[in-house]
Amino acid sequence: MSIALRSPRLQRPPRRQARGLRTREAILASAVDIASVNGLDGLTVGTLAAHLHMSKSGLFAHFGSKEDLQLATVEMARQIFIDKVTRPAIAAPRGLPRLWGLINQWLLLVEKKVFSGGCFFSAASFEFDGKRGVVRDRIATIMREWLDVLARAVEQAQKVGHLRENVNPTRLVYEIHGLAMGAHWAYQLLDDRRAYSRAREAVLEKLRACATPGAPHLP
Amino acid sequence: MSIALRSPRLQRPPRRQARGLRTREAILASAVDIASVNGLDGLTVGTLAAHLHMSKSGLFAHFGSKEDLQLATVEMARQIFIDKVTRPAIAAPRGLPRLWGLINQWLLLVEKKVFSGGCFFSAASFEFDGKRGVVRDRIATIMREWLDVLARAVEQAQKVGHLRENVNPTRLVYEIHGLAMGAHWAYQLLDDRRAYSRAREAVLEKLRACATPGAPHLP
Repeated sequence: MSIALRSPRLQRPPRRQARGLRTREAILASAVDIASVNGLDGLTVGTLAAHLHMSKSGLFAHFGSKEDLQLATVEMARQIFIDKVTRPAIAAPRGLPRLWGLINQWLLLVEKKVFSGGCFFSAASFEFDGKRGVVRDRIATIMREWLDVLARAVEQAQKVGHLRENVNPTRLVYEIHGLAMGAHWAYQLLDDRRAYSRAREAVLEKLRACATPGAPHLP
Repeated sequence: MSIALRSPRLQRPPRRQARGLRTREAILASAVDIASVNGLDGLTVGTLAAHLHMSKSGLFAHFGSKEDLQLATVEMARQIFIDKVTRPAIAAPRGLPRLWGLINQWLLLVEKKVFSGGCFFSAASFEFDGKRGVVRDRIATIMREWLDVLARAVEQAQKVGHLRENVNPTRLVYEIHGLAMGAHWAYQLLDDRRAYSRAREAVLEKLRACATPGAPHLP
Protein backbone atom coordinates (compact mmCIF):
# COMPACT_ATOMS: atom_id res chain seq x y z
CA MET A 1 0.00 0.00 0.00
CA SER A 2 2.98 2.28 0.46
CA ILE A 3 4.17 5.06 -1.78
CA ALA A 4 7.61 3.59 -1.06
CA LEU A 5 6.95 -0.10 -1.66
CA ARG A 6 5.08 0.26 -4.89
CA SER A 7 7.81 2.17 -6.67
CA PRO A 8 8.01 1.23 -10.38
CA ARG A 9 11.83 1.39 -9.96
CA LEU A 10 11.62 -1.91 -8.12
CA GLN A 11 10.39 -3.72 -11.22
CA ARG A 12 13.28 -3.87 -13.68
CA PRO A 13 12.27 -4.00 -17.35
CA PRO A 14 13.88 -6.49 -19.78
CA ARG A 15 17.03 -4.98 -21.32
CA ARG A 16 15.58 -4.57 -24.81
CA GLN A 17 12.83 -2.38 -23.40
CA ALA A 18 15.23 -0.31 -21.36
CA ARG A 19 16.14 2.27 -24.00
CA GLY A 20 12.52 2.99 -24.86
CA LEU A 21 11.77 3.38 -21.19
CA ARG A 22 14.66 5.80 -20.76
CA THR A 23 13.25 7.97 -23.56
CA ARG A 24 9.84 7.75 -21.99
CA GLU A 25 11.26 8.71 -18.60
CA ALA A 26 13.06 11.72 -20.08
CA ILE A 27 9.86 12.84 -21.81
CA LEU A 28 7.89 12.44 -18.61
CA ALA A 29 10.45 14.30 -16.51
CA SER A 30 9.85 17.29 -18.82
CA ALA A 31 6.10 16.71 -18.63
CA VAL A 32 6.19 16.83 -14.81
CA ASP A 33 8.15 20.06 -14.93
CA ILE A 34 5.81 21.70 -17.46
CA ALA A 35 2.74 20.53 -15.52
CA SER A 36 4.16 21.97 -12.29
CA VAL A 37 4.07 25.39 -13.97
CA ASN A 38 1.09 25.17 -16.37
CA GLY A 39 -1.00 22.56 -14.56
CA LEU A 40 -1.84 19.07 -15.83
CA ASP A 41 -4.59 20.52 -18.00
CA GLY A 42 -2.09 22.98 -19.44
CA LEU A 43 0.08 20.04 -20.49
CA THR A 44 -0.69 19.05 -24.06
CA VAL A 45 1.15 16.82 -26.52
CA GLY A 46 1.72 20.04 -28.51
CA THR A 47 3.42 22.00 -25.69
CA LEU A 48 5.45 18.96 -24.69
CA ALA A 49 6.58 18.32 -28.29
CA ALA A 50 7.62 21.98 -28.67
CA HIS A 51 9.53 21.86 -25.37
CA LEU A 52 11.38 18.66 -26.33
CA HIS A 53 11.90 19.59 -30.00
CA MET A 54 10.13 16.35 -30.92
CA SER A 55 7.37 15.71 -33.42
CA LYS A 56 3.83 15.43 -32.12
CA SER A 57 3.51 12.06 -33.87
CA GLY A 58 6.64 10.81 -32.05
CA LEU A 59 5.02 11.69 -28.76
CA PHE A 60 1.68 10.19 -29.75
CA ALA A 61 3.52 6.87 -30.14
CA HIS A 62 4.24 7.05 -26.40
CA PHE A 63 0.95 8.53 -25.21
CA GLY A 64 -2.27 7.92 -27.06
CA SER A 65 -4.41 10.58 -25.46
CA LYS A 66 -4.11 13.66 -23.28
CA GLU A 67 -5.49 11.64 -20.37
CA ASP A 68 -2.86 8.92 -20.89
CA LEU A 69 -0.20 11.62 -20.89
CA GLN A 70 -1.62 13.16 -17.70
CA LEU A 71 -1.73 9.77 -15.96
CA ALA A 72 1.82 8.92 -17.02
CA THR A 73 2.96 12.35 -15.81
CA VAL A 74 1.32 11.78 -12.42
CA GLU A 75 3.11 8.40 -12.14
CA MET A 76 6.43 10.04 -12.99
CA ALA A 77 5.86 12.74 -10.35
CA ARG A 78 5.08 9.98 -7.83
CA GLN A 79 8.33 8.23 -8.77
CA ILE A 80 10.31 11.46 -8.28
CA PHE A 81 8.56 11.97 -4.94
CA ILE A 82 9.55 8.45 -3.87
CA ASP A 83 13.16 8.92 -5.01
CA LYS A 84 13.60 12.36 -3.43
CA VAL A 85 11.39 12.16 -0.35
CA THR A 86 10.25 8.72 0.79
CA ARG A 87 13.39 6.73 -0.04
CA PRO A 88 15.97 8.98 1.64
CA ALA A 89 13.67 9.47 4.64
CA ILE A 90 13.03 5.77 5.28
CA ALA A 91 16.79 5.21 5.42
CA ALA A 92 16.66 6.97 8.81
CA PRO A 93 15.94 4.90 11.95
CA ARG A 94 12.29 4.19 12.77
CA GLY A 95 10.58 6.65 15.03
CA LEU A 96 10.98 10.41 15.27
CA PRO A 97 14.07 10.61 13.00
CA ARG A 98 12.16 8.92 10.15
CA LEU A 99 9.01 10.98 10.69
CA TRP A 100 10.98 14.21 10.73
CA GLY A 101 12.92 13.06 7.67
CA LEU A 102 9.73 12.51 5.67
CA ILE A 103 8.50 16.03 6.35
CA ASN A 104 11.88 17.66 5.98
CA GLN A 105 12.61 15.93 2.65
CA TRP A 106 9.22 17.07 1.37
CA LEU A 107 10.02 20.66 2.35
CA LEU A 108 13.45 20.37 0.72
CA LEU A 109 11.93 19.00 -2.51
CA VAL A 110 10.09 22.26 -3.15
CA GLU A 111 12.64 24.53 -1.50
CA LYS A 112 15.33 23.16 -3.84
CA LYS A 113 13.04 23.76 -6.84
CA VAL A 114 13.07 20.14 -8.05
CA PHE A 115 9.89 21.10 -9.94
CA SER A 116 9.97 24.51 -11.68
CA GLY A 117 6.45 25.36 -10.57
CA GLY A 118 6.52 24.38 -6.89
CA CYS A 119 4.89 21.35 -5.29
CA PHE A 120 3.55 19.17 -8.13
CA PHE A 121 1.05 17.27 -5.99
CA SER A 122 -0.29 20.28 -4.09
CA ALA A 123 -0.96 21.99 -7.42
CA ALA A 124 -2.41 18.84 -9.02
CA SER A 125 -4.61 18.29 -5.96
CA PHE A 126 -6.19 21.74 -6.12
CA GLU A 127 -6.39 21.58 -9.93
CA PHE A 128 -8.34 18.31 -9.96
CA ASP A 129 -10.22 18.38 -6.67
CA GLY A 130 -13.37 19.75 -8.29
CA LYS A 131 -13.25 17.37 -11.26
CA ARG A 132 -14.24 13.75 -11.80
CA GLY A 133 -12.34 11.01 -13.59
CA VAL A 134 -9.34 8.73 -13.50
CA VAL A 135 -6.74 11.49 -13.17
CA ARG A 136 -8.39 12.96 -10.08
CA ASP A 137 -8.86 9.46 -8.64
CA ARG A 138 -5.20 8.60 -9.15
CA ILE A 139 -4.02 11.86 -7.55
CA ALA A 140 -6.31 11.21 -4.58
CA THR A 141 -5.00 7.63 -4.21
CA ILE A 142 -1.38 8.80 -4.24
CA MET A 143 -2.16 11.48 -1.67
CA ARG A 144 -3.81 8.86 0.57
CA GLU A 145 -0.68 6.70 0.19
CA TRP A 146 1.43 9.67 1.30
CA LEU A 147 -0.79 10.31 4.33
CA ASP A 148 -0.55 6.58 5.13
CA VAL A 149 3.25 6.69 4.98
CA LEU A 150 3.21 9.60 7.43
CA ALA A 151 0.64 7.93 9.70
CA ARG A 152 2.68 4.72 9.77
CA ALA A 153 5.77 6.72 10.69
CA VAL A 154 3.82 8.27 13.59
CA GLU A 155 2.62 4.84 14.75
CA GLN A 156 6.14 3.43 14.55
CA ALA A 157 7.37 6.41 16.58
CA GLN A 158 4.78 5.49 19.23
CA LYS A 159 5.80 1.81 19.14
CA VAL A 160 9.47 2.58 19.67
CA GLY A 161 8.56 4.95 22.50
CA HIS A 162 9.42 8.30 20.85
CA LEU A 163 5.88 9.69 20.70
CA ARG A 164 3.28 9.52 23.45
CA GLU A 165 0.65 6.78 23.19
CA ASN A 166 -2.21 9.29 23.48
CA VAL A 167 -1.21 11.15 20.29
CA ASN A 168 -3.80 10.71 17.54
CA PRO A 169 -1.76 9.74 14.44
CA THR A 170 -4.36 10.96 11.90
CA ARG A 171 -4.64 14.33 13.53
CA LEU A 172 -0.91 14.81 13.96
CA VAL A 173 -0.37 13.89 10.30
CA TYR A 174 -2.94 16.44 9.11
CA GLU A 175 -1.41 19.14 11.28
CA ILE A 176 2.14 18.71 10.05
CA HIS A 177 0.89 18.15 6.50
CA GLY A 178 -0.99 21.47 6.65
CA LEU A 179 2.08 23.28 7.94
CA ALA A 180 4.19 21.91 5.07
CA MET A 181 1.59 22.70 2.41
CA GLY A 182 1.23 26.22 3.82
CA ALA A 183 5.00 26.66 3.50
CA HIS A 184 4.96 25.57 -0.16
CA TRP A 185 2.16 28.08 -0.76
CA ALA A 186 3.93 31.00 0.93
CA TYR A 187 7.32 30.23 -0.63
CA GLN A 188 6.04 29.77 -4.14
CA LEU A 189 3.25 32.36 -4.40
CA LEU A 190 4.43 35.04 -1.96
CA ASP A 191 8.20 34.58 -2.45
CA ASP A 192 8.38 34.27 1.32
CA ARG A 193 12.00 33.30 1.99
CA ARG A 194 11.23 32.58 5.66
CA ALA A 195 8.43 30.12 4.82
CA TYR A 196 10.49 26.95 5.26
CA SER A 197 12.42 27.94 8.37
CA ARG A 198 9.10 28.94 9.97
CA ALA A 199 7.45 25.66 8.93
CA ARG A 200 10.38 23.62 10.26
CA GLU A 201 10.22 25.45 13.59
CA ALA A 202 6.46 24.86 13.81
CA VAL A 203 6.68 21.14 12.88
CA LEU A 204 9.55 20.54 15.29
CA GLU A 205 7.71 22.34 18.09
CA LYS A 206 4.66 20.17 17.41
CA LEU A 207 6.73 16.96 17.40
CA ARG A 208 8.51 17.97 20.62
CA ALA A 209 5.14 18.63 22.26
CA CYS A 210 4.08 15.06 21.37
CA ALA A 211 7.42 13.41 22.23
CA THR A 212 8.20 11.29 25.28
CA PRO A 213 10.97 12.33 27.71
CA GLY A 214 13.19 9.56 26.29
CA ALA A 215 12.78 10.50 22.63
CA PRO A 216 15.92 11.19 20.59
CA HIS A 217 17.01 14.77 20.11
CA LEU A 218 15.49 16.57 17.11
CA PRO A 219 17.46 19.24 15.18
CA MET B 1 -4.77 47.84 3.06
CA SER B 2 -7.51 45.52 4.26
CA ILE B 3 -9.40 42.96 2.27
CA ALA B 4 -12.41 44.33 4.18
CA LEU B 5 -11.93 48.07 3.73
CA ARG B 6 -11.20 47.98 0.04
CA SER B 7 -14.40 46.17 -0.88
CA PRO B 8 -15.85 47.43 -4.20
CA ARG B 9 -19.30 47.16 -2.56
CA LEU B 10 -18.48 50.25 -0.56
CA GLN B 11 -18.33 52.37 -3.72
CA ARG B 12 -21.87 52.64 -5.08
CA PRO B 13 -22.08 53.10 -8.84
CA PRO B 14 -24.36 55.79 -10.39
CA ARG B 15 -27.89 54.41 -10.94
CA ARG B 16 -27.69 54.33 -14.75
CA GLN B 17 -24.67 52.04 -14.53
CA ALA B 18 -26.30 49.74 -12.02
CA ARG B 19 -28.05 47.39 -14.43
CA GLY B 20 -24.94 46.82 -16.52
CA LEU B 21 -23.02 46.11 -13.35
CA ARG B 22 -25.63 43.60 -12.19
CA THR B 23 -25.27 41.72 -15.49
CA ARG B 24 -21.52 41.87 -15.12
CA GLU B 25 -21.74 40.60 -11.54
CA ALA B 26 -23.96 37.69 -12.60
CA ILE B 27 -21.53 36.77 -15.37
CA LEU B 28 -18.60 36.94 -12.99
CA ALA B 29 -20.35 34.87 -10.32
CA SER B 30 -20.58 32.09 -12.94
CA ALA B 31 -16.99 32.71 -13.96
CA VAL B 32 -15.81 32.26 -10.36
CA ASP B 33 -17.72 29.02 -10.09
CA ILE B 34 -16.38 27.63 -13.39
CA ALA B 35 -12.84 28.69 -12.48
CA SER B 36 -13.12 26.96 -9.10
CA VAL B 37 -13.64 23.70 -11.02
CA ASN B 38 -11.61 24.17 -14.23
CA GLY B 39 -9.02 26.66 -13.01
CA LEU B 40 -8.58 30.25 -14.17
CA ASP B 41 -6.73 29.03 -17.25
CA GLY B 42 -9.61 26.66 -17.98
CA LEU B 43 -11.97 29.65 -17.99
CA THR B 44 -12.40 30.94 -21.52
CA VAL B 45 -14.91 33.35 -23.03
CA GLY B 46 -16.15 30.30 -24.98
CA THR B 47 -16.85 28.08 -21.93
CA LEU B 48 -18.39 30.99 -20.06
CA ALA B 49 -20.65 31.91 -23.02
CA ALA B 50 -21.80 28.28 -23.33
CA HIS B 51 -22.51 28.09 -19.61
CA LEU B 52 -24.54 31.33 -19.62
CA HIS B 53 -26.24 30.71 -22.99
CA MET B 54 -24.85 34.03 -24.14
CA SER B 55 -23.06 34.92 -27.34
CA LYS B 56 -19.28 35.17 -27.26
CA SER B 57 -19.53 38.67 -28.74
CA GLY B 58 -21.86 39.71 -25.88
CA LEU B 59 -19.24 38.57 -23.41
CA PHE B 60 -16.41 40.21 -25.31
CA ALA B 61 -18.25 43.52 -24.79
CA HIS B 62 -17.69 43.01 -21.05
CA PHE B 63 -14.20 41.49 -21.14
CA GLY B 64 -11.77 42.34 -23.90
CA SER B 65 -9.25 39.57 -23.34
CA LYS B 66 -8.85 36.32 -21.47
CA GLU B 67 -6.55 38.10 -19.03
CA ASP B 68 -9.16 40.81 -18.41
CA LEU B 69 -11.72 38.07 -17.73
CA GLN B 70 -9.34 36.30 -15.35
CA LEU B 71 -8.60 39.52 -13.47
CA ALA B 72 -12.30 40.41 -13.20
CA THR B 73 -13.02 36.86 -11.97
CA VAL B 74 -10.34 37.17 -9.30
CA GLU B 75 -11.89 40.49 -8.16
CA MET B 76 -15.32 38.88 -7.99
CA ALA B 77 -13.95 35.97 -5.93
CA ARG B 78 -12.34 38.51 -3.60
CA GLN B 79 -15.68 40.29 -3.24
CA ILE B 80 -17.44 37.00 -2.40
CA PHE B 81 -14.69 36.23 0.11
CA ILE B 82 -15.21 39.63 1.75
CA ASP B 83 -19.00 39.22 1.84
CA LYS B 84 -18.95 35.65 3.18
CA VAL B 85 -15.84 35.60 5.35
CA THR B 86 -14.34 38.96 6.34
CA ARG B 87 -17.54 40.98 6.76
CA PRO B 88 -19.45 38.53 9.01
CA ALA B 89 -16.29 37.84 11.02
CA ILE B 90 -15.41 41.47 11.73
CA ALA B 91 -18.91 41.96 13.14
CA ALA B 92 -17.68 39.92 16.14
CA PRO B 93 -15.92 41.73 19.02
CA ARG B 94 -12.21 42.41 18.65
CA GLY B 95 -9.89 39.80 20.01
CA LEU B 96 -10.23 36.03 20.03
CA PRO B 97 -13.91 35.99 18.91
CA ARG B 98 -13.03 37.93 15.73
CA LEU B 99 -9.90 35.89 15.02
CA TRP B 100 -11.80 32.63 15.45
CA GLY B 101 -14.64 34.01 13.31
CA LEU B 102 -12.29 34.77 10.41
CA ILE B 103 -10.94 31.23 10.35
CA ASN B 104 -14.28 29.58 10.98
CA GLN B 105 -16.04 31.57 8.25
CA TRP B 106 -13.30 30.60 5.82
CA LEU B 107 -13.76 26.93 6.71
CA LEU B 108 -17.54 27.32 6.33
CA LEU B 109 -17.17 28.98 2.92
CA VAL B 110 -15.70 25.81 1.42
CA GLU B 111 -17.58 23.36 3.64
CA LYS B 112 -20.87 24.89 2.43
CA LYS B 113 -19.71 24.59 -1.20
CA VAL B 114 -20.09 28.29 -2.01
CA PHE B 115 -17.74 27.53 -4.92
CA SER B 116 -18.43 24.27 -6.82
CA GLY B 117 -14.75 23.40 -7.02
CA GLY B 118 -13.58 24.06 -3.46
CA CYS B 119 -11.49 26.98 -2.23
CA PHE B 120 -11.13 29.40 -5.15
CA PHE B 121 -8.03 31.15 -3.81
CA SER B 122 -6.19 27.99 -2.73
CA ALA B 123 -6.69 26.61 -6.23
CA ALA B 124 -5.80 29.90 -7.94
CA SER B 125 -2.70 30.22 -5.74
CA PHE B 126 -1.32 26.83 -6.72
CA GLU B 127 -2.38 27.31 -10.36
CA PHE B 128 -0.50 30.61 -10.75
CA ASP B 129 2.36 30.28 -8.29
CA GLY B 130 4.76 29.08 -10.98
CA LYS B 131 3.71 31.73 -13.52
CA ARG B 132 4.50 35.39 -14.04
CA GLY B 133 2.18 38.25 -14.87
CA VAL B 134 -0.59 40.47 -13.59
CA VAL B 135 -2.98 37.64 -12.65
CA ARG B 136 -0.43 35.94 -10.42
CA ASP B 137 0.55 39.31 -8.91
CA ARG B 138 -3.06 40.16 -8.12
CA ILE B 139 -3.70 36.75 -6.50
CA ALA B 140 -0.53 37.18 -4.41
CA THR B 141 -1.59 40.70 -3.34
CA ILE B 142 -5.04 39.49 -2.27
CA MET B 143 -3.49 36.60 -0.33
CA ARG B 144 -1.15 39.06 1.44
CA GLU B 145 -4.19 41.19 2.32
CA TRP B 146 -5.84 38.10 3.82
CA LEU B 147 -2.76 37.24 5.87
CA ASP B 148 -2.65 40.89 7.02
CA VAL B 149 -6.30 40.72 8.11
CA LEU B 150 -5.50 37.62 10.17
CA ALA B 151 -2.29 39.13 11.58
CA ARG B 152 -4.15 42.30 12.61
CA ALA B 153 -6.79 40.16 14.33
CA VAL B 154 -4.01 38.41 16.27
CA GLU B 155 -2.42 41.75 17.25
CA GLN B 156 -5.81 43.12 18.37
CA ALA B 157 -6.33 39.95 20.43
CA GLN B 158 -3.00 40.69 22.11
CA LYS B 159 -3.93 44.35 22.69
CA VAL B 160 -7.24 43.47 24.34
CA GLY B 161 -5.47 40.87 26.47
CA HIS B 162 -6.87 37.67 24.94
CA LEU B 163 -3.61 36.35 23.51
CA ARG B 164 -0.25 36.31 25.24
CA GLU B 165 2.20 39.11 24.35
CA ASN B 166 4.95 36.63 23.47
CA VAL B 167 2.92 35.03 20.66
CA ASN B 168 4.46 35.76 17.24
CA PRO B 169 1.52 36.96 15.08
CA THR B 170 3.10 36.01 11.73
CA ARG B 171 3.86 32.50 12.88
CA LEU B 172 0.47 31.94 14.48
CA VAL B 173 -1.23 33.15 11.30
CA TYR B 174 0.77 30.76 9.11
CA GLU B 175 0.00 27.86 11.42
CA ILE B 176 -3.76 28.34 11.48
CA HIS B 177 -3.74 29.22 7.78
CA GLY B 178 -1.98 25.93 6.99
CA LEU B 179 -4.47 23.97 9.09
CA ALA B 180 -7.39 25.53 7.21
CA MET B 181 -5.83 25.02 3.79
CA GLY B 182 -5.09 21.40 4.68
CA ALA B 183 -8.74 20.93 5.60
CA HIS B 184 -9.91 22.33 2.24
CA TRP B 185 -7.51 19.92 0.53
CA ALA B 186 -8.66 16.85 2.46
CA TYR B 187 -12.35 17.70 2.18
CA GLN B 188 -12.31 18.46 -1.50
CA LEU B 189 -9.80 15.96 -2.88
CA LEU B 190 -10.15 13.06 -0.44
CA ASP B 191 -13.85 13.51 0.39
CA ASP B 192 -12.77 13.49 4.01
CA ARG B 193 -15.94 14.35 5.95
CA ARG B 194 -13.99 14.77 9.19
CA ALA B 195 -11.59 17.33 7.68
CA TYR B 196 -13.35 20.41 9.06
CA SER B 197 -14.14 19.13 12.53
CA ARG B 198 -10.50 18.04 12.84
CA ALA B 199 -9.23 21.42 11.58
CA ARG B 200 -11.52 23.30 13.99
CA GLU B 201 -10.28 21.21 16.92
CA ALA B 202 -6.67 21.83 15.92
CA VAL B 203 -7.13 25.60 15.43
CA LEU B 204 -9.02 25.95 18.71
CA GLU B 205 -6.39 23.94 20.56
CA LYS B 206 -3.69 26.22 19.10
CA LEU B 207 -5.61 29.37 20.07
CA ARG B 208 -6.23 28.06 23.60
CA ALA B 209 -2.52 27.33 23.97
CA CYS B 210 -1.76 30.97 23.06
CA ALA B 211 -4.60 32.49 25.14
CA THR B 212 -4.30 34.34 28.45
CA PRO B 213 -6.13 33.05 31.56
CA GLY B 214 -8.66 35.90 31.20
CA ALA B 215 -9.49 35.28 27.52
CA PRO B 216 -13.14 34.71 26.59
CA HIS B 217 -14.40 31.17 26.19
CA LEU B 218 -13.96 29.66 22.72
CA PRO B 219 -16.50 27.14 21.33
